Amino acid sequence: MKFCSQCASPVEHRIPEGDNRLRFVCPQCQTIHNQNPRIIAGCLPVWGEQVLLCRRAIEPRRGFWTLPAGFMENGETLEQAAARETLEEACARVHGMQLYTLFDLPHINQVYMLFRAELADLDFAAGEESLEVRLFDEQQIPWSELAFPTIGRTLECYFADRATQHFPVRNEPLAALRAHHKKA
Amino acid sequence: MKFCSQCASPVEHRIPEGDNRLRFVCPQCQTIHNQNPRIIAGCLPVWGEQVLLCRRAIEPRRGFWTLPAGFMENGETLEQAAARETLEEACARVHGMQLYTLFDLPHINQVYMLFRAELADLDFAAGEESLEVRLFDEQQIPWSELAFPTIGRTLECYFADRATQHFPVRNEPLAALRAHHKKA
Repeated sequence: MKFCSQCASPVEHRIPEGDNRLRFVCPQCQTIHNQNPRIIAGCLPVWGEQVLLCRRAIEPRRGFWTLPAGFMENGETLEQAAARETLEEACARVHGMQLYTLFDLPHINQVYMLFRAELADLDFAAGEESLEVRLFDEQQIPWSELAFPTIGRTLECYFADRATQHFPVRNEPLAALRAHHKKA
Repeated sequence: MKFCSQCASPVEHRIPEGDNRLRFVCPQCQTIHNQNPRIIAGCLPVWGEQVLLCRRAIEPRRGFWTLPAGFMENGETLEQAAARETLEEACARVHGMQLYTLFDLPHINQVYMLFRAELADLDFAAGEESLEVRLFDEQQIPWSELAFPTIGRTLECYFADRATQHFPVRNEPLAALRAHHKKA
């Protein structure tokens, strides 16, 4: 951020009075431009014993496999955002959504929130941001070709929890992701 | 948003090519300025049978009772944000945090995420944004003087779940809040 979005003056980067964090502040109109983490919402779409993954057509991690997910937009709910991303990236419709994994990624100012969901039917296809979309059995998961640690960790949790049919919401610290990443 | 924060040109409000939503777009440097929902993180601090509430010293809802909560900042985790808000608003330290309620407020582009937590000790006090901080038994909760529906709904869930000592993470639709608000 270089200029004030309200009055076009060059902004300063300083701690405002009564605050304790560096902010972009406009010395002209006094607007304080807060910046906050963004939410990535997505789905783990399930069809019987299989899960649906998308191969990314865009950077970062083009060519790697992911769950359909993306930035939550203003005006929508978490569920709506996750379902929309699933429709956009996998042309797939889901129901029975249940919040499942939450991951903090403070180094990139993101929070991942992924839902378990049932595929409504087998009418799916690669959306604009996907090269390929397909169903995988647990034994087929391309663990070394997953796009992000959040995706691998969600799949690990899912297959572990499926054995007991108990799917607690998991809000795990970054350490769990790092451990996964190292292993992968 | 009136001006581009990168180059100070007046922005346009239009749907970018390949997109399907209105965005602020800079016709000069082509930057697309996405706007996304913000997270409110907070705690339900518990001390034995009692819960801690803060009476707001600031608008909106000055004078009404709330749980310590506020905007999550860049560079922190959900838990860190919730603990920081609890320290700032109630000068209280907590441990044993467990994610508890999530509420979508799409009409104001917010997602509430509240944690159950144990108060570390009775060394709490009103922070700068609070007029008063105190512990309440269930029978003392000022239901008609709560600041926001999210707060009342979280307290309702907590007292109901406490009876069974089972506290599932609750991601409830807005309808539950509206029903609560009408009742209150």
